[in-house]
Amino acid sequence: MAVNEIYQYSIISALMDGIASTGLPVSKLITHGDHGLGTFRHMFGEMIILDGKLYQMKSDGTVSEVDTGPSSEAVSPFAMVTRFRPTTTIKASFDDKKGLFEHLSHDFPDSKNFFLAIRIEGVFKNVTTRTAGGQSKPGESMVVVGANQASHTFAEPIRGTVVGFRSPQYAHGINVAGDHLHFITEDRKQGGHILALGTDGEVEISAAQISEWRIELPTNDPEFNKAKLEMDSEGINKVEG
Amino acid sequence: MAVNEIYQYSIISALMDGIASTGLPVSKLITHGDHGLGTFRHMFGEMIILDGKLYQMKSDGTVSEVDTGPSSEAVSPFAMVTRFRPTTTIKASFDDKKGLFEHLSHDFPDSKNFFLAIRIEGVFKNVTTRTAGGQSKPGESMVVVGANQASHTFAEPIRGTVVGFRSPQYAHGINVAGDHLHFITEDRKQGGHILALGTDGEVEISAAQISEWRIELPTNDPEFNKAKLEMDSEGINKVEG
Repeated sequence: MAVNEIYQYSIISALMDGIASTGLPVSKLITHGDHGLGTFRHMFGEMIILDGKLYQMKSDGTVSEVDTGPSSEAVSPFAMVTRFRPTTTIKASFDDKKGLFEHLSHDFPDSKNFFLAIRIEGVFKNVTTRTAGGQSKPGESMVVVGANQASHTFAEPIRGTVVGFRSPQYAHGINVAGDHLHFITEDRKQGGHILALGTDGEVEISAAQISEWRIELPTNDPEFNKAKLEMDSEGINKVEG
Repeated sequence: MAVNEIYQYSIISALMDGIASTGLPVSKLITHGDHGLGTFRHMFGEMIILDGKLYQMKSDGTVSEVDTGPSSEAVSPFAMVTRFRPTTTIKASFDDKKGLFEHLSHDFPDSKNFFLAIRIEGVFKNVTTRTAGGQSKPGESMVVVGANQASHTFAEPIRGTVVGFRSPQYAHGINVAGDHLHFITEDRKQGGHILALGTDGEVEISAAQISEWRIELPTNDPEFNKAKLEMDSEGINKVEG
């Protein structure tokens, strides 16, 4: 794929419905980008793709780099990636996710109907992440999985990287409208889906506005074929907001 | 693009909002497929792409083949195309769109969460088509444009081709959930967006189930940047149902 195009596997409503028994091999996913996020089989942990490396951040607090070679058995039931080439890089500070949202809206004033790929480098404070603990049985919905997630608030300011996407409102249900961000520490030993974060001084925000969106739907997945895939806006916001 | 992948330009909610002053040059659109439908600048008429030829079907009842060469000035503010290679071809008859829907649902039992590309060849009866007469001013919404459309009911059975797509429910607002079909007569002199049709005896239905969906959003279109793009399900069903 060309740079700054979003490749997305499956749709978030499928994950809401608990469609996570199988997925796209990460060896294929990684061919579509070097920057992204997602989850793993049975929603065990959070995925972050940074500089072409793919990490699994688990609810036991551990982080491991996942082999993306042809023999890897790891799969992803939902992921979004891009070949990220930022078009804008700014220094900024913000107190919370809302402050970050406003910063990016200011810097990309005509972006509300487009996607943004976002990367932030620096020292963060008031960081709370969650890591899904996984389905206790196949087909368990994401809201149920989310109720059993581990959340972690960093006690001290922590250096790391934020990776994610902003999606337009009309994409909600197919993916997550608004800012969907994952975090990994500089030492690559901790991280997860961002529930809250602010900055400790200025950080570097890099972003690119995206107008090409490619969705691959799961084939050979009987669970997906039968799924309801009805919009559960409240549920998505509860577990992905 | 590979075969049986959907390439879509813009989203149907933008057309609902009247975003039609510009669009993708048809010379680019045609590189993405040989089978499809859409509309033209200011919603003047209906587009059908059949065997790689692109036709404009206007509200004055005329049909003309549109030049898709590099010097063509024609643009499309909304279109869906694929490089169509049917995987199933059946002979069938049906009385109305509902009957067609049920036929395809039977032949593609696991397709409800996917797309179908559809082509039907044969003699049809009770055919009613509409052709949008275009915006009377830039930005006029599709519901207003639709109120002024020309509709035509063929008095006699007519031989021709149906081209279109079925889209899953979760795609509604981005495109049109359900069957979205255009018709052109065998002599390529009449046609439009299908409001109603049945068959006169058996026809040949060809279709392919599609799991790859690529959306290109309009860039350099200030109208699109500012558009509300809120889901107007009732409006879409009114003008595209």
